[in-house]
Amino acid sequence: MDHIRALGKRLSNWRRWGADDERGTLNFITPDVVRRAAALVRRGQVFSLGLSFGADGPQIGQGGRVNPLHLMTAVDQKLPAEYPDAFRYADDVMVLPLQCATQWDSLAHVHYDGELYNGFPAATITSAGAARNGIDKVGAGIVSRGVLLDLARAAGVPRLQAGHAISPAELEAAERAERVRVERGDVLLVRTGHLSVFKADGDRAGYMRMMPGLGIACAEWLHAREVAAVAADTNSVEVIPFEDPKTPLPLHLVCLRDMGLTLGEMFDLDALADDCATDGVWEFFFSAPPLKVTGGVCSPLNPLAIK
Amino acid sequence: MDHIRALGKRLSNWRRWGADDERGTLNFITPDVVRRAAALVRRGQVFSLGLSFGADGPQIGQGGRVNPLHLMTAVDQKLPAEYPDAFRYADDVMVLPLQCATQWDSLAHVHYDGELYNGFPAATITSAGAARNGIDKVGAGIVSRGVLLDLARAAGVPRLQAGHAISPAELEAAERAERVRVERGDVLLVRTGHLSVFKADGDRAGYMRMMPGLGIACAEWLHAREVAAVAADTNSVEVIPFEDPKTPLPLHLVCLRDMGLTLGEMFDLDALADDCATDGVWEFFFSAPPLKVTGGVCSPLNPLAIK
Amino acid sequence: MDHIRALGKRLSNWRRWGADDERGTLNFITPDVVRRAAALVRRGQVFSLGLSFGADGPQIGQGGRVNPLHLMTAVDQKLPAEYPDAFRYADDVMVLPLQCATQWDSLAHVHYDGELYNGFPAATITSAGAARNGIDKVGAGIVSRGVLLDLARAAGVPRLQAGHAISPAELEAAERAERVRVERGDVLLVRTGHLSVFKADGDRAGYMRMMPGLGIACAEWLHAREVAAVAADTNSVEVIPFEDPKTPLPLHLVCLRDMGLTLGEMFDLDALADDCATDGVWEFFFSAPPLKVTGGVCSPLNPLAIK
Amino acid sequence: MDHIRALGKRLSNWRRWGADDERGTLNFITPDVVRRAAALVRRGQVFSLGLSFGADGPQIGQGGRVNPLHLMTAVDQKLPAEYPDAFRYADDVMVLPLQCATQWDSLAHVHYDGELYNGFPAATITSAGAARNGIDKVGAGIVSRGVLLDLARAAGVPRLQAGHAISPAELEAAERAERVRVERGDVLLVRTGHLSVFKADGDRAGYMRMMPGLGIACAEWLHAREVAAVAADTNSVEVIPFEDPKTPLPLHLVCLRDMGLTLGEMFDLDALADDCATDGVWEFFFSAPPLKVTGGVCSPLNPLAIK
Repeated sequence: MDHIRALGKRLSNWRRWGADDERGTLNFITPDVVRRAAALVRRGQVFSLGLSFGADGPQIGQGGRVNPLHLMTAVDQKLPAEYPDAFRYADDVMVLPLQCATQWDSLAHVHYDGELYNGFPAATITSAGAARNGIDKVGAGIVSRGVLLDLARAAGVPRLQAGHAISPAELEAAERAERVRVERGDVLLVRTGHLSVFKADGDRAGYMRMMPGLGIACAEWLHAREVAAVAADTNSVEVIPFEDPKTPLPLHLVCLRDMGLTLGEMFDLDALADDCATDGVWEFFFSAPPLKVTGGVCSPLNPLAIK
Repeated sequence: MDHIRALGKRLSNWRRWGADDERGTLNFITPDVVRRAAALVRRGQVFSLGLSFGADGPQIGQGGRVNPLHLMTAVDQKLPAEYPDAFRYADDVMVLPLQCATQWDSLAHVHYDGELYNGFPAATITSAGAARNGIDKVGAGIVSRGVLLDLARAAGVPRLQAGHAISPAELEAAERAERVRVERGDVLLVRTGHLSVFKADGDRAGYMRMMPGLGIACAEWLHAREVAAVAADTNSVEVIPFEDPKTPLPLHLVCLRDMGLTLGEMFDLDALADDCATDGVWEFFFSAPPLKVTGGVCSPLNPLAIK
Repeated sequence: MDHIRALGKRLSNWRRWGADDERGTLNFITPDVVRRAAALVRRGQVFSLGLSFGADGPQIGQGGRVNPLHLMTAVDQKLPAEYPDAFRYADDVMVLPLQCATQWDSLAHVHYDGELYNGFPAATITSAGAARNGIDKVGAGIVSRGVLLDLARAAGVPRLQAGHAISPAELEAAERAERVRVERGDVLLVRTGHLSVFKADGDRAGYMRMMPGLGIACAEWLHAREVAAVAADTNSVEVIPFEDPKTPLPLHLVCLRDMGLTLGEMFDLDALADDCATDGVWEFFFSAPPLKVTGGVCSPLNPLAIK
Repeated sequence: MDHIRALGKRLSNWRRWGADDERGTLNFITPDVVRRAAALVRRGQVFSLGLSFGADGPQIGQGGRVNPLHLMTAVDQKLPAEYPDAFRYADDVMVLPLQCATQWDSLAHVHYDGELYNGFPAATITSAGAARNGIDKVGAGIVSRGVLLDLARAAGVPRLQAGHAISPAELEAAERAERVRVERGDVLLVRTGHLSVFKADGDRAGYMRMMPGLGIACAEWLHAREVAAVAADTNSVEVIPFEDPKTPLPLHLVCLRDMGLTLGEMFDLDALADDCATDGVWEFFFSAPPLKVTGGVCSPLNPLAIK
């Protein structure tokens, strides 16, 4: 952990946006960034980057995370007797781990040494929810320029292997191949191709347990580039098995807790990547509001890319 | 009901977009509409139109609808013993009626005479969910030009009274006052001011039981203008008590079932309206993806307006 | 269905205990029956007949029934800061289909021709629950003499085959083999051995989809013997595939709707059966209170047999 | 806390029933105790001591505990098309905090200094549930002699005041008044009358926040009498506000963690007490099985007293 502590300290954004800040690198998204991002809408085509929420989701019960339970609480339901019999309606309820499919991890999701991002005590998270750094603090959503780096395509493979730790050099190689550059305020979308383990092979355990992903060396790169958020097509954004077997999820710790960098997981980037490969344009307008769950640690969502 | 059947038949969009269509008037949103909508982003300011999801929501248990239950399933949680004690995480689960706060009603939400929009049998909705016309069919979201008609402001009152049935003439008066015109493919946002009954007065029952809203005469107007979707700051978009006490929710029936027009409920339009009143611009880029709930009848969401 | 209607009419207990009765054959359990049942406690040994409620339950998602979701909402939780740090507690929440494991079916569970047991309209069951015949009407529980008929043992096999329809003659053969007689007010426990498909083989689908069970001919026998309730070690008490493929769950219809006879499902009778085989005593004190779920259609429980 | 630690050490039952024991004082319930308890059934009358589980329960959201959510997942539901239209069924789901109404607290519910009853590490409780001392370890239920001490009646008042700390002398005065003596293996039921604050007055907050209950001095008395379990008609069995404001829930700590004494909360003892006052018999057969929730910290139930 000591090297993580050192790295976290070096890349720390604590106090950068004030002692009360609960949004971290989302502060890089200024109105000017949004305005320029909107100008990227050229064809008016909308891509949904979200998985479905239902019994056929990717979860296998790890850490108590299950697929959503969708319950119909009214089917072909009449109103009270004074109304016409003809009127019918349907209602439904969902029970879902907020981490069960496509999601944002808020800055309250992980921590170490008793402190969350910006120095808030970990004890501000209780059974009542996250009083600090929760997903509800993201409020008006995450709207910015999106840049897709397709690491699988850049490597000339359908998908990176589980355990492959992506390096900064590989990120830059993808940038060069795509003729795009990740800049301040961007949301970086990392495609590894690993989602096909679930979508095409139907292998949930293979998808959820091991995966390619960003190596810890990328933390510095993300910091230098001043990205606003990072999302990937895997369950953890970062590589598993961990580069140092004794240090689990180091990128989560440094990004969420030290840098205040929101992470997006299980984004479906396949259709978007195909389109980008076709027209050669890897930047787009990106709109991905979380549900404003009061005190929520994470939020399910349906992110959109618009070209 | 017979006049509703007659009206529904007259305004029907069944087969307009083919026998298999499950999206109805969202088909008015062409790529060209999206492209032009994006051009409305001038300042890069993002407005969240969503209520919070939590125990403090507006529900009072009507028809079994309750406020969401947010459960922390991990707080200050360690990983297994082989990992450093320092690493901690939090996880959460939510139980929520999909109609509990800001939401889209899918075309599967209401029906009559045994048929849903486009003639699909009502029996396609079962305890397994909506096989037809479900919210998952909206897929890539509802992205278009948004136009806000502030009926309260146009009437010079803080809020319309519960039971006030908005007429097409009032919609057009608001258009004139705002110098905007609702057109094909637009998402129409109707502000009545009624949300303040909940937000400012804290009167949930007052907010949920009676409300101002569109009168049934507006159905024809919405049809003529070819709007893609309509949302309001109330729980039903349309007026309650009903204009004809024997005919509940007539606009729901005609819009959702006959016209295939998606309805949005409990949108918070107050901050957006203030901004529009200030700059005089009542049109904007509107991005409002539902969660892709498999077989879902409705979906919670956090809609965005971007100016 | 016509033969079922005719049988139901012949065995009907409607009005037998008054026009307001919602307990059906549980009325056979008089205080005298309870008193004599208690006298059967000779050794003071208690047998739990309940399955566990958890992710390892028997459900496979049929008809939306899933295994319970058990969520820890507090782990190693401190009280607010003014209290000693030493105090810690744990809390939990469960989400469970009330039919997910060992359960009582209330008289509101199935019906036909628009009427429930005792002629109450089926429309008394709404999205708010069962206003009539619900499990809450069982109130003080089901406490009586229990008699276990071990059909597998009587047949000299470890378990009856799925699809085996138990006949009244087989019930009486088991009675003779066990030197016991099912009488008015008894709770009859039917052991088929089929539970081992789940417990020993781990074959959930094999356990839930097809099963041995009472044939429809047993309805008359149960009526003649005036049993108070019947439970078995299967998911439906009755045989599946159905004897008449066009008539699903006929025993459910006649027992629950016409006779007012409560059914118990997925009772684990193995340890009790072994004990009865050892001491030759197949009758015992039986105590099996449901949870008093307001408007509940069914209830999970942990039934007890005491010898 | 130090005096609690000292008291806990003095009354400790750790290792008394072996290093693997997870049942604590329930071990006092021998078959002989059960046999003699059954002999108390003289009239065959069954009393339900359970509250209803539903939206009308006593919870006010304290610590995230809410009343159960009962969801109808099938109402008037048909089977697939190949079956007769006449067959209909209803199904339901419940979402409930396991502490929401009448319940047993397992020995995993509270702890201090990192250890549970019998020295198991507190870390055996994780987001997966209680691996040690959970309610599932109670298995065959809590069946024994029940003795009701009606402290309100003994004091000649309808109900004890919130904050009233019951002393051992008061317990013994009630014993003398009722001509009964609490003995080894008994389940002690303590009636304070406080439940009427909820049931009669409808004052949930008054019922849940402050209450009469056992003072910490009773711990020694319970230990000396070797009771198997204690239940009361309040939410905590013990008095609130706490006798020592700095030491919350001391009886919970000493009973559950040191003595291994299971606690029952929110038992409805009113009808039973009236009957006991009438016939002068304050002992009875007591049968109160928890649901076997795998890894459950607590369990809802419907306890029975049979006279």
